[in-house]
Amino acid sequence: MKKNVFYAQSGGVTPVINATALGLIKSVISDKKNFGKIFAGKNGIIGALKEELIDISKEDLRELEKLKFTPGGAFGSCRLKLKDPIKNKREFQRILEVFNAHNIGYFFYNGGGDSQDTTLKLSQFFKSMNYDIKCIGLPKTIDNDLPITDNCPGFGTAAKYIAVSTYEASLDVASMAESSTKVFILEVMGRHAGWLAAASGIIKTTDADAPHIILLPEVIFNSKKFLQKVDQIVKKEGHCVVVTSEGIRDKKKEFVSSSKDKDSFGHAQLGGVAPKLAALVTTSLKHKVHWSVSDYLQRASRHIGSKIDVSQAFELGKKSIQFAKQGRNEIMLTIKGKKKNGKYAWSIGYTELKNVANKEKTLPSNYISSDNFGITNKCKEYILNLVKGEDYPTYKNGIPKYAKLKKILIKKKLKKFLL
Amino acid sequence: MKKNVFYAQSGGVTPVINATALGLIKSVISDKKNFGKIFAGKNGIIGALKEELIDISKEDLRELEKLKFTPGGAFGSCRLKLKDPIKNKREFQRILEVFNAHNIGYFFYNGGGDSQDTTLKLSQFFKSMNYDIKCIGLPKTIDNDLPITDNCPGFGTAAKYIAVSTYEASLDVASMAESSTKVFILEVMGRHAGWLAAASGIIKTTDADAPHIILLPEVIFNSKKFLQKVDQIVKKEGHCVVVTSEGIRDKKKEFVSSSKDKDSFGHAQLGGVAPKLAALVTTSLKHKVHWSVSDYLQRASRHIGSKIDVSQAFELGKKSIQFAKQGRNEIMLTIKGKKKNGKYAWSIGYTELKNVANKEKTLPSNYISSDNFGITNKCKEYILNLVKGEDYPTYKNGIPKYAKLKKILIKKKLKKFLL
Repeated sequence: MKKNVFYAQSGGVTPVINATALGLIKSVISDKKNFGKIFAGKNGIIGALKEELIDISKEDLRELEKLKFTPGGAFGSCRLKLKDPIKNKREFQRILEVFNAHNIGYFFYNGGGDSQDTTLKLSQFFKSMNYDIKCIGLPKTIDNDLPITDNCPGFGTAAKYIAVSTYEASLDVASMAESSTKVFILEVMGRHAGWLAAASGIIKTTDADAPHIILLPEVIFNSKKFLQKVDQIVKKEGHCVVVTSEGIRDKKKEFVSSSKDKDSFGHAQLGGVAPKLAALVTTSLKHKVHWSVSDYLQRASRHIGSKIDVSQAFELGKKSIQFAKQGRNEIMLTIKGKKKNGKYAWSIGYTELKNVANKEKTLPSNYISSDNFGITNKCKEYILNLVKGEDYPTYKNGIPKYAKLKKILIKKKLKKFLL
Repeated sequence: MKKNVFYAQSGGVTPVINATALGLIKSVISDKKNFGKIFAGKNGIIGALKEELIDISKEDLRELEKLKFTPGGAFGSCRLKLKDPIKNKREFQRILEVFNAHNIGYFFYNGGGDSQDTTLKLSQFFKSMNYDIKCIGLPKTIDNDLPITDNCPGFGTAAKYIAVSTYEASLDVASMAESSTKVFILEVMGRHAGWLAAASGIIKTTDADAPHIILLPEVIFNSKKFLQKVDQIVKKEGHCVVVTSEGIRDKKKEFVSSSKDKDSFGHAQLGGVAPKLAALVTTSLKHKVHWSVSDYLQRASRHIGSKIDVSQAFELGKKSIQFAKQGRNEIMLTIKGKKKNGKYAWSIGYTELKNVANKEKTLPSNYISSDNFGITNKCKEYILNLVKGEDYPTYKNGIPKYAKLKKILIKKKLKKFLL
């Protein structure tokens, strides 16, 4: 009997995670010889625990096609970290029961580092229970911090959004600087890795261009040096554009951000560096400052999709089905970039899950400029490759026609499970 | 002898103010019979005071054409309010001297309410001095708060940006809500008028849709009612999307925003309502909250231009030259919307400057929903008309090709003037 497919989205979503879902869904439903039905977990792995499986066959195909340009996680995502399977097998056993009840033979988990770890642990558990299933991780994260893969789907679009937003805001502040705002600060995501803040640097070609200062979590924040630099730039260029990672820390390793809350993974919940830096500049240098926090806007910025990014996300989904058919297991798919006739080219590969789980890739030191306030040409070239081409959603009456799915659940077969 | 034209940008810029500049510039340079040269004030009216006049004829025409899709103020803007001409004539006299020295017979001032007031005062001063000049105001403001004109150029694009951003972020929070973030708050501009916050409402078709709460400066902010509403929405829909104007105030008429600074016009400098509301929700309802402050990003958001908005901005510039040729003086151009065969149509008209100076148009009460947390269908229809169609900039290697002007100043003829 043909096995069914279970796909779930995990962790913070991206503007192109649904393109990966679509690539995978289309490959499964066009291969009736090898695959049974495809189900999506409602709200990620929580859907498996609660036996809430969305029946993709009930969706309108035209609506599914819109997943290519719809941000957010169309089936729902989650930030649930499964308990340790050695100390507490309950959740792992439940997922096995649900998968077994619905004849699941393929598990695709679309997430970041934490999720790849979950996929690995689940795979190891299934093996230990002699349950026959292929477990495959699909990368996604705007943070671009997964190892092995040359880049992560979602980053290219978020990078394009940040670069273009910085460019636009810099033109605004430049026009106002003579008599009003002289400093503009944009806060972007990036807890430990500065890829997103670095992305703003691709619009810079001369010293006079914005961004004049990029603050990275890889560099210890020093308020004195920062203020000196702002002062120097304002004196020279008349205005100063700063792009800061949410995760910058001082020499005591404390986040500059004001919020000390933690999310369910135990990570500090950040946000609010921009107003802190703005207050610092206003107080110390007496300049008028404007600031912006892009937060979810950058993570859902599908209206300014990078064509390369969308293509890679879609192909990852397609390719994951080919790898599954080849019998691959316990792998995460990867993107391999290379130069072909002097131009950027890419292909999809894979690595064993154990190589990626819980490892973070930060900016290499040769991507950070010598003054620690910018990026090198090597970094610029790397990021420029990932923002190329525009992929716009379809609009109706001025508003994007994002997918509206029915999300009909299949009939439950098991008893209720308390989370 | 043919008279020269002086054009200047004023106040907070918009994503389409340069389209107005281009419409005007093209009309002047194609009409050599009636007009001499065209100069732009470097940094608005400051350019007139300092005798810093940008010589448009020195610019590359292909670069000028890019003004159609370049945000910011290409010639520089300013927030300088001229001193009262009765009490202190010095600045007015200087502008007359500069205009006289450079044979200026046409003054076009592209700005908001304060700038229209400046144009009127200058015109009256010139008349009193028997200096022959046409003074014409061109509207611009993303705030959409000018009277008489049915809408303001710049609003349509900012409205589109806010609506699409809210839509995108709402899909993100909806995917995370089961196990993580349940409330998302977006702060937009709007000191006294809620047009920009209202714009988010055009994506809503059912009660379940975002935005669930719109906070307008026209409505007194009541934290108890707000928290009750958030609680109710999260219980019903699983998540809640809030869009707030920066300028909301409590019953004591105090801004909810934390910053108490003032700009050079004496207006309170706002920003920071979103983190305040986020703290309120987290503390009172214990929900995880994400928040974003769009600030300059919304004001420079040319990458998601509204086609209607760009067309209107461009046509205003063109038409202003026709009105000048007809001998009109002391007017501000206006946009007149009407229904034509059931569809939205528009034309350019004008009103006397004295009708607009220093008046603000806030949201009419029949545009605000009865619960005070949303907009009516009448408001939705009005805003939808202004966001229709997409007008994208040209890109190269993934980055918009925004105009880079040379801004060469003409030779000064007068002594230095101390501001």
